[in-house]
Amino acid sequence: MKQVAVVGGGLVGSGWALVFARAGIPVRLFDASEDIRQAAPSRIRASLLDMLEFGLVDDVDAIARRIEVVDSMVDAVSAADYVQESVFERADVKTAVCAEIGAAIRDDAVVGSSSSGIPASMFTEQAPRRSRFLIAHPVNPPHLVPLVELVPAPWTDPEIVPWLREAMEQVGQVPIVVNREIEGFILNRLQGALLNEAWALLDAGLASVADIDRTVAHGLGLRWSFMGPFETIDLNAPGGIEDYAQRLGTLYHSIAQDRRDPKPWSPDLIEFATAERREVLAKPELEARSAWRNRRLMALISHKRGQPER
Amino acid sequence: MKQVAVVGGGLVGSGWALVFARAGIPVRLFDASEDIRQAAPSRIRASLLDMLEFGLVDDVDAIARRIEVVDSMVDAVSAADYVQESVFERADVKTAVCAEIGAAIRDDAVVGSSSSGIPASMFTEQAPRRSRFLIAHPVNPPHLVPLVELVPAPWTDPEIVPWLREAMEQVGQVPIVVNREIEGFILNRLQGALLNEAWALLDAGLASVADIDRTVAHGLGLRWSFMGPFETIDLNAPGGIEDYAQRLGTLYHSIAQDRRDPKPWSPDLIEFATAERREVLAKPELEARSAWRNRRLMALISHKRGQPER
Repeated sequence: MKQVAVVGGGLVGSGWALVFARAGIPVRLFDASEDIRQAAPSRIRASLLDMLEFGLVDDVDAIARRIEVVDSMVDAVSAADYVQESVFERADVKTAVCAEIGAAIRDDAVVGSSSSGIPASMFTEQAPRRSRFLIAHPVNPPHLVPLVELVPAPWTDPEIVPWLREAMEQVGQVPIVVNREIEGFILNRLQGALLNEAWALLDAGLASVADIDRTVAHGLGLRWSFMGPFETIDLNAPGGIEDYAQRLGTLYHSIAQDRRDPKPWSPDLIEFATAERREVLAKPELEARSAWRNRRLMALISHKRGQPER
Repeated sequence: MKQVAVVGGGLVGSGWALVFARAGIPVRLFDASEDIRQAAPSRIRASLLDMLEFGLVDDVDAIARRIEVVDSMVDAVSAADYVQESVFERADVKTAVCAEIGAAIRDDAVVGSSSSGIPASMFTEQAPRRSRFLIAHPVNPPHLVPLVELVPAPWTDPEIVPWLREAMEQVGQVPIVVNREIEGFILNRLQGALLNEAWALLDAGLASVADIDRTVAHGLGLRWSFMGPFETIDLNAPGGIEDYAQRLGTLYHSIAQDRRDPKPWSPDLIEFATAERREVLAKPELEARSAWRNRRLMALISHKRGQPER
């Protein structure tokens, strides 16, 4: 990657601009809204100053200078070898934007979409140069959580996936490849499986919202912040993953059997959970708590950087 | 808690002894095996020295001195106000041990079992003083991961649960209450839900073992190491958990619908995952990797202690 364009300058787009600029790459940022274009530089600077405090960046000015906000789509994308599309998550909006992007890019450019759920085939089918498009789904915010899911559409040029995987690694993200489109990709399917079980346990009156949260925050989530579920079980039986699966596969299959008839999260259940959450955190406090979460994420990332990987 | 007994001196029992001794409580540790009794003090001292290195304990000698290994069950439990049972996880073994414990304890003692899956009603029904027994299931190792699940049997004295919850908090653990017995309790049901989805994604050829692991270790697991799944989604939509559930409930219900016919983890699939794991970590390296995991856990816990909870 030598020149990057970011299309869509909201929270996700601004975070992406920061990711590429932090890696030394010049970025052109475009948003159709003038308000968002005007707000972007100060939002990005605020994030950089937060990161500076946690030792996650050095030279705030140099990084900020690499990000140029431009006021036309063509200006943003025409010279880019990589375009990160981060506009509003609705298929019709993305279809229109991708048609515009596809018409303006170089033949060899690659376009990754930040879509968290809509697969690329739903909004790039009619786009010019559609073989250059795929999903590059980040976790929010992308400059703090490094994971990116790369998901090709059926017509994505197969050479693009390994190229983007390497390029994402070079800018400090952690890319994974989802071999073909599936609803929710990998991350939200894993999150959804745990959430669905959490809601079902709550619905059955087995534990409170706070106690289910504690189970993860002081139990399961500790190991999962530095190793995945397969490695976790590989180290949880003397003979490794095979040994673990043989000991506990039956239990886990039996648990799955309990959920053969999944209920949607009902309005009553949502209201019940909301009431418990609003007791510990009033609605006006949500924003301050999100800022706390971001500070905790920055501290955790800074901590992880100092840890040996073996 | 003024005097604690730990019955079973393996990895889990030794960890528990350390937890109580660290909180200043005298502990009597008993194991039926003389070999295990003899090995326990040096195993505990090794754990304490590791923890000292990460700033998690101060006075190793004082803590070690509080743990007395005794060579009879009656000696261990007769004066204790709390007994932590940590013997081999098989219903018949636990039934025999709990009958012995129940016969030897004070009338007002409480007995928590470390059972990770077998509910207390399966092995305490015939025990003397059975109303004093419940599950107190730790994550392994208990001196590093603070979560403990408290699960009463139908005959557990209802006053015990709040008493043990408070006592566990006082020794520095994070207790949660599971209101009634259910297979896998809360922690392993949540872990199982995510694992079942992970195996299904692997089975469908959607991603590699390593990429599924990365999705958690560099994505989902970061937030989950300091806040639970409900708080995570409460902060992931402008209007809180209600807003999130309304936006995404349909997606997550649809994902659950895909798993209406859960397959067991098949021998072929287990072999496939094992082959990938053994490529990155040979079987003889499992033990060294577990030691690395424990060091990472200690570093993470030390990091978390320095972080503001709001």
